[in-house]
Amino acid sequence: MKEKNQVYSMRGSKAQQAPCRKTRRLRAMKRMNTPGSFVTTEFKSSLKHECGVFGIFHHPEAANLTYLGLYALQHRGQEGAGIVSSDGKKLYQERKHGLVSDVFHVGRLKRLKGHHAIGHVRYSTAGDDRLKNIQPLLIQYEQGPLSIAHNGNLTNAVYLKKQLEKQGSIFQTTSDTEIVLHLIAKSRLQTLEERIIEALKQVEGAYCFLFLTQDKLIAVRDPYGFRPLVLGAFDGNDACHVFASETSAFDLIDAKLIREVEPGEMISVSSDGMKSQKPFEPKPTKQCVFEHIYFARPDSFLFNENVYQVRTLMGKKLSQEQPATADIVVPVPDSGVPAAVGYAESSGIPFQMGIIRNHYVGRTFIEPEQAIRNFGVKIKLNPIRSILEGKSIVLVDDSIVRGTTSKKIVQLLRQNGAKEVHVRISAPPTIGPCYYGIDTPTKSELIASKNNIESIRKFIGADTLGYLSIEGMLSVFKDQKKYCTACFDDRYPFYPKD
Amino acid sequence: MKEKNQVYSMRGSKAQQAPCRKTRRLRAMKRMNTPGSFVTTEFKSSLKHECGVFGIFHHPEAANLTYLGLYALQHRGQEGAGIVSSDGKKLYQERKHGLVSDVFHVGRLKRLKGHHAIGHVRYSTAGDDRLKNIQPLLIQYEQGPLSIAHNGNLTNAVYLKKQLEKQGSIFQTTSDTEIVLHLIAKSRLQTLEERIIEALKQVEGAYCFLFLTQDKLIAVRDPYGFRPLVLGAFDGNDACHVFASETSAFDLIDAKLIREVEPGEMISVSSDGMKSQKPFEPKPTKQCVFEHIYFARPDSFLFNENVYQVRTLMGKKLSQEQPATADIVVPVPDSGVPAAVGYAESSGIPFQMGIIRNHYVGRTFIEPEQAIRNFGVKIKLNPIRSILEGKSIVLVDDSIVRGTTSKKIVQLLRQNGAKEVHVRISAPPTIGPCYYGIDTPTKSELIASKNNIESIRKFIGADTLGYLSIEGMLSVFKDQKKYCTACFDDRYPFYPKD
Amino acid sequence: MKEKNQVYSMRGSKAQQAPCRKTRRLRAMKRMNTPGSFVTTEFKSSLKHECGVFGIFHHPEAANLTYLGLYALQHRGQEGAGIVSSDGKKLYQERKHGLVSDVFHVGRLKRLKGHHAIGHVRYSTAGDDRLKNIQPLLIQYEQGPLSIAHNGNLTNAVYLKKQLEKQGSIFQTTSDTEIVLHLIAKSRLQTLEERIIEALKQVEGAYCFLFLTQDKLIAVRDPYGFRPLVLGAFDGNDACHVFASETSAFDLIDAKLIREVEPGEMISVSSDGMKSQKPFEPKPTKQCVFEHIYFARPDSFLFNENVYQVRTLMGKKLSQEQPATADIVVPVPDSGVPAAVGYAESSGIPFQMGIIRNHYVGRTFIEPEQAIRNFGVKIKLNPIRSILEGKSIVLVDDSIVRGTTSKKIVQLLRQNGAKEVHVRISAPPTIGPCYYGIDTPTKSELIASKNNIESIRKFIGADTLGYLSIEGMLSVFKDQKKYCTACFDDRYPFYPKD
Amino acid sequence: MKEKNQVYSMRGSKAQQAPCRKTRRLRAMKRMNTPGSFVTTEFKSSLKHECGVFGIFHHPEAANLTYLGLYALQHRGQEGAGIVSSDGKKLYQERKHGLVSDVFHVGRLKRLKGHHAIGHVRYSTAGDDRLKNIQPLLIQYEQGPLSIAHNGNLTNAVYLKKQLEKQGSIFQTTSDTEIVLHLIAKSRLQTLEERIIEALKQVEGAYCFLFLTQDKLIAVRDPYGFRPLVLGAFDGNDACHVFASETSAFDLIDAKLIREVEPGEMISVSSDGMKSQKPFEPKPTKQCVFEHIYFARPDSFLFNENVYQVRTLMGKKLSQEQPATADIVVPVPDSGVPAAVGYAESSGIPFQMGIIRNHYVGRTFIEPEQAIRNFGVKIKLNPIRSILEGKSIVLVDDSIVRGTTSKKIVQLLRQNGAKEVHVRISAPPTIGPCYYGIDTPTKSELIASKNNIESIRKFIGADTLGYLSIEGMLSVFKDQKKYCTACFDDRYPFYPKD
Repeated sequence: MKEKNQVYSMRGSKAQQAPCRKTRRLRAMKRMNTPGSFVTTEFKSSLKHECGVFGIFHHPEAANLTYLGLYALQHRGQEGAGIVSSDGKKLYQERKHGLVSDVFHVGRLKRLKGHHAIGHVRYSTAGDDRLKNIQPLLIQYEQGPLSIAHNGNLTNAVYLKKQLEKQGSIFQTTSDTEIVLHLIAKSRLQTLEERIIEALKQVEGAYCFLFLTQDKLIAVRDPYGFRPLVLGAFDGNDACHVFASETSAFDLIDAKLIREVEPGEMISVSSDGMKSQKPFEPKPTKQCVFEHIYFARPDSFLFNENVYQVRTLMGKKLSQEQPATADIVVPVPDSGVPAAVGYAESSGIPFQMGIIRNHYVGRTFIEPEQAIRNFGVKIKLNPIRSILEGKSIVLVDDSIVRGTTSKKIVQLLRQNGAKEVHVRISAPPTIGPCYYGIDTPTKSELIASKNNIESIRKFIGADTLGYLSIEGMLSVFKDQKKYCTACFDDRYPFYPKD
Repeated sequence: MKEKNQVYSMRGSKAQQAPCRKTRRLRAMKRMNTPGSFVTTEFKSSLKHECGVFGIFHHPEAANLTYLGLYALQHRGQEGAGIVSSDGKKLYQERKHGLVSDVFHVGRLKRLKGHHAIGHVRYSTAGDDRLKNIQPLLIQYEQGPLSIAHNGNLTNAVYLKKQLEKQGSIFQTTSDTEIVLHLIAKSRLQTLEERIIEALKQVEGAYCFLFLTQDKLIAVRDPYGFRPLVLGAFDGNDACHVFASETSAFDLIDAKLIREVEPGEMISVSSDGMKSQKPFEPKPTKQCVFEHIYFARPDSFLFNENVYQVRTLMGKKLSQEQPATADIVVPVPDSGVPAAVGYAESSGIPFQMGIIRNHYVGRTFIEPEQAIRNFGVKIKLNPIRSILEGKSIVLVDDSIVRGTTSKKIVQLLRQNGAKEVHVRISAPPTIGPCYYGIDTPTKSELIASKNNIESIRKFIGADTLGYLSIEGMLSVFKDQKKYCTACFDDRYPFYPKD
Repeated sequence: MKEKNQVYSMRGSKAQQAPCRKTRRLRAMKRMNTPGSFVTTEFKSSLKHECGVFGIFHHPEAANLTYLGLYALQHRGQEGAGIVSSDGKKLYQERKHGLVSDVFHVGRLKRLKGHHAIGHVRYSTAGDDRLKNIQPLLIQYEQGPLSIAHNGNLTNAVYLKKQLEKQGSIFQTTSDTEIVLHLIAKSRLQTLEERIIEALKQVEGAYCFLFLTQDKLIAVRDPYGFRPLVLGAFDGNDACHVFASETSAFDLIDAKLIREVEPGEMISVSSDGMKSQKPFEPKPTKQCVFEHIYFARPDSFLFNENVYQVRTLMGKKLSQEQPATADIVVPVPDSGVPAAVGYAESSGIPFQMGIIRNHYVGRTFIEPEQAIRNFGVKIKLNPIRSILEGKSIVLVDDSIVRGTTSKKIVQLLRQNGAKEVHVRISAPPTIGPCYYGIDTPTKSELIASKNNIESIRKFIGADTLGYLSIEGMLSVFKDQKKYCTACFDDRYPFYPKD
Repeated sequence: MKEKNQVYSMRGSKAQQAPCRKTRRLRAMKRMNTPGSFVTTEFKSSLKHECGVFGIFHHPEAANLTYLGLYALQHRGQEGAGIVSSDGKKLYQERKHGLVSDVFHVGRLKRLKGHHAIGHVRYSTAGDDRLKNIQPLLIQYEQGPLSIAHNGNLTNAVYLKKQLEKQGSIFQTTSDTEIVLHLIAKSRLQTLEERIIEALKQVEGAYCFLFLTQDKLIAVRDPYGFRPLVLGAFDGNDACHVFASETSAFDLIDAKLIREVEPGEMISVSSDGMKSQKPFEPKPTKQCVFEHIYFARPDSFLFNENVYQVRTLMGKKLSQEQPATADIVVPVPDSGVPAAVGYAESSGIPFQMGIIRNHYVGRTFIEPEQAIRNFGVKIKLNPIRSILEGKSIVLVDDSIVRGTTSKKIVQLLRQNGAKEVHVRISAPPTIGPCYYGIDTPTKSELIASKNNIESIRKFIGADTLGYLSIEGMLSVFKDQKKYCTACFDDRYPFYPKD
């Protein structure tokens, strides 16, 4: 029986935001910690991050530009944001829960003195006291202050933490990122670069790291290159270097893309200029295909391809692999739009925004006692009856995770008069979790891990259901061999270690 | 010379929100009052509202449903929200600045006891102390408590206020709505209905009012019918009646549309049922065409037409009146999307979401000292270079107000490689302000009031520029004679009175 | 049975504060409204104020000095504070719930422009939305802006309000003060002074009013002179005039006392200087003796006597009227201290601070499930066992209201080893409520209204109990006939009118 | 020249509070960090704490009682408060800046589950992000969660921290307390007790520690016994043990004092009962005499003496050593009161509360541009002219630190008519700083470190000045040899080590 005034939680996420819908759907069983309280728990091997990082060296407005860079990476993490800057002598840290535009105001930015800065947007549930989990982390160790920002997930974090604790290390956060700091602090090597290399040689997993000291910014991308990291510059300012998870951060601040930081590359920037090295054993490149499918911003140039174009091409390929006889093509907004445009163009079936996304969605909603049909979907998605009524519809989305949301959307279309609903997914069925930095449900929660397509179709109530094939998906890329497709084909490069 | 850390204000508006972009552009010279302070000023004849109202009578979850109704009307006002409920004995009021989902939480809703409620979303700048301007207003007068929610604008407010002050009335708000309360309190007639009629006969302007007492809900729409107001009901609950500015509010709560409240109609709902009367002198219907062009939500059914469909038809008509030779049709998102879809379909030129709207936009942005080109537009609109590069583009928008934003968007497209930019506006040129409830700039600020189309084209830097004609615009409606088009043709039904 | 985590409320008052202990004890049955909610209720004839007012005309730092003046009057009201200033053209208002030092910061004070200001500290329960009840009130009426600050209580408020509502007046606050504004707004006389006189002639009760317009400050004290109001000035600045409830406000800002505003006097200050008149029918002076007994600050000079000295003399008189054989004299801190010093000096029994007052007391306390003996008293009062143990004690306090607190204090002393406890009260038994501005319990709640002294002694558990006589109390004053003693002798000058 | 609206800071302290006036005066050159920002700085050897600790084992309302215990220790630290509780499985932490009654509400206390708890009140400047400096600290180390609360100061903290950093330790706080946690985490011994002993053997300084794990509470007092720590119990609950810095915490919760924790004693409480050991090399007892002079609460029983009584005896001794011919004895409230009572009783000169302390004092005050004479003192102290006028006064205080405040108080008395001011200090001249847990100015700031009594008299403008002698001070104690008097006689038991 239902409680009065049931709170319909948007599952812990800021829901105003288009690009993270999938992320939210993928995120499972997130324990809601009571805000403001802190409970010591076992280190969670399942704690994963989708995050965004930004760094800038030698610019008079380092903090201001980092703030804007983070704003342009907001879709990569809405739980918290932080910046650490350096004026050559000290490091300054500001961080808080919330969206970038809420976290930073003029006063906070002015406190971030200096010409160098790194920033981070974070994606994880957290109570007030978990402030300490918001990155960039900033520590004081033997050689002075050191800050770190991390996008990715370390798969041997549990193992490493145990080892370090046996040696007397005390952990302050529940983040895997802190492990790297301990390894660096414990290293007996001389330079920071040497210590970082020694530390990262012990680490397994997916990572893009930005490190900041008083006078140095170091960027490292793991040898597989799971997560994106780009290097940029400003016209007419050769001394300044910028790093970001996506090019969208460069576009906003008028920086230009120089190149990707390569898998396994470490770039160190100081007043002596920029130095690159590849200190790690080379590995096959395993760029995350999900970044293209739903995670990155459509205008970003990622792994040397434009995201919107990739999605449009996937939509076109999907229309060839999974054609449908229908009156209109309707996307699940916002992330389904590019694929739907491609599907429509390729199939000749007219494109219609038959569902409008509501961007006012807050964190939680209070549902009346007398339950409203499909409340959770209706709060975000507004179907347009005059468009849908009596129509046979191709509904384009980019993934089905548990199937429950897709089921509700199909119901919503039918309630608004849709005659037929043909669901088309612009990616292959998701059969396994990600261990490399995307927060996914466990295998057993993924509907495609245990059901064939016909079972899924029945569950979601579609007339027909079609997925893009793995080959079809890869066919849209220039270099098809450089992608990690483990969540679709179970071929994991390596597994987590406890 | 620029100040360091310049704050780039989103002009006082919550900017996360698609539907109000136009509104924001239309809103001019809004004075930013220091929050928390209060300055007594002359009554502003220019204070206008775009607002949304919702009312429900005889439902066990009156406040909860009003909250959801207001959420579905959020696009009509983002500055503040309020609900007044009645349990038959007392009225309960809750109101605050901010979005509906921020204003109301479980605790606040529980304090709103009873089976009847009215709510309001408001659109006006306001400091903390201006809380008292947030509606529904609630007063205590001779006959007990009375609450009011208003969408519209009274054009003889200045005159009436002076008259009332001469008789010793004290005004607590700067809102024109309070005038109606004073007229009712001063009336010597017996019933509330009689008093309301006597009061409204003295009033000129555009209005939809909802009144609530302990045991009665009264809805009134002005004789011209400028603003929309609909009547709804629940299946299986004949005693319950609902009112809303738009049908989107009914869809979310599973209420069904019964009919529009007619121009000049007063509907009174009590435990005795619903009574309708038309106590005012009849006037020609003057429904606001701008509600369809940009203000209402695309899924709403407004003045007996669906908004999305109207916009798509306007896009089609536009493509016929103002054809273009181009590679792609690109909307200015979000409000330009339906017209662009129509333009694309009618012209056969492929539709592309060549500009992505960023929905994380906060209230203000801090711009670096070294100004960024087109910062204000880039913070919200993300052009996709791979789509735009080398293309001849039809850019579809629904209005040009001052022209400055359009100019920046055209520049942005060119910076991202657009070969040609053909701007097409799915409405006629806006040459005059609105006096009937939409907050517009003064005549002199409207670029089309003093410039011909060629001058505007030059100003915004487009290759060609085409507007929809007034006839073309009206042609998409079933009943073309019932619309107010004063802002396009200067034929105002009446003028404000000082 | 007790609830877990019972919240021990300090009865809605800021309890850090010594001088208001009595006030809190006197305040009865205060309904706690849920904060942030608003319930329309009948106008409460029982709503009374103990408040403080401050005004200053023609000083370059009007708001800053008003802020300090209010701080020095903080003991007269801790619920909220406000200032309205004038720069000759406009009035500026800032007000908030809380202590003066919390309400005002540099930013708020800077917004209070101009050379004239009035301020108010308020003492009444209030939710968020009751902000509008915090004074000074500020309205816009026919002749422009008008602000008012009030200390006192109007006894025909209910009657006047009904009359005004019949004429169509709308009330925004539940405060009796607003009635005066309506009467002024309704007056057809020319000058503000004339209108105020006309208004106040209709009013009965106790009041000190400060009015502020753009260019005028008007102070009025009622013909009985119940509440104090003093006039001051600055050396070397003849144009500047200041008003305050007590001289403590002058001392802090280095102003000097000129004289009391006389009962029935209206002083009007403008750029033309100061004008005094006595427009009302003269009445016998009825200064509140309770101001001296507990309400005013000990260092204030009130009704031409110093408060501390009056209290010390009452203590001396008490020792003569009600001697005791004991080892030490111990005050109930803080307000009992001066009388205890006097009692000790006159009796020769040594004075000891045998109870220390804790000044960290917050608004509420959470009491454990397993109730703690005398928790409510122990949270504030810390007895010193080494002083009390084995001693016969004279416990000096200034009043017994319900008797429950006195009972707990006596118990506390006994628990800490007191051999005998002789309670001595430096005022007569309180047998009736105050209608003239002090918030007291109803008659039936006052223990002395229905019990003789022996019954009270038994109830509180003292070995002996002695009160000061009315004659003894009055004997310490220079002019004994000018005091209202109605709460002690039931001789009320007039009664409230419904 | 003065700035407009100068903010008169109460030097970073909550100033509502009597007992910490001295502390504030003693606190020097406290750098005000911008709130919310974090600057990495060198570890400050000068960072000292006056703090209070409370612990309870095996009580169903552990958190509630700890909250009350901390409230009763509030005078020992007003900057922040925290509690860590244990339910046998997990530790729960709640902490925040502010007073105990502000930090804890019902919700926070309910989150503190379990039957064991330790708490801490803290006294140090801190920004938002310095939350992590608020105790009890809580870490996760090899053997699980461990919490610590500390009152004291470690004099070899700088040295130990350097050593630990060389071994790769990362410090999260700037607190010396964290060092102990690292030493424990690094220990290879088996039991927590063994590890703590190993750790504390490396530590020099003054300390009372409370440690909490899931199932154990350990209390340790340093071998010199600088800071107080008492052990208590509840009648009828043998299994429950409580610890507190002062007995005032026991009185509020109805616990009874068992005994002091002895210098060098470690008490370990678990489900197996209580075990005591003295694992450290014995040292001469060096109880802090300043605890008695001003720091502790007057009703506390400290080092086996009652504080109020000690102060009264010091006042008596002072009157014998430093007699004066005068009309009245006036204390500087609140801390000077007991000594003044003693002085008056011994000398026969009448006691008068000639200065009233204002307990509404907030954190900062805005001083007008036109400076007010002795503003900083007047905001807190209200002289009573009618008492002081024409009198020869003995002004009793407990210390003179820099002399500037004493100078202002003397001026204030003279402005209020005092004929003569004879300053008497109930302690010897303070000539050196404290290294053992009380935050004092540097030696050069202490007026008595470089000036003889006549110079000080001249500086403060007194007619005569007399201090209590060291011998006189010690004479009031039962065991005079057990006190540290280093700040008076420069005989430090040991010095800080860098």
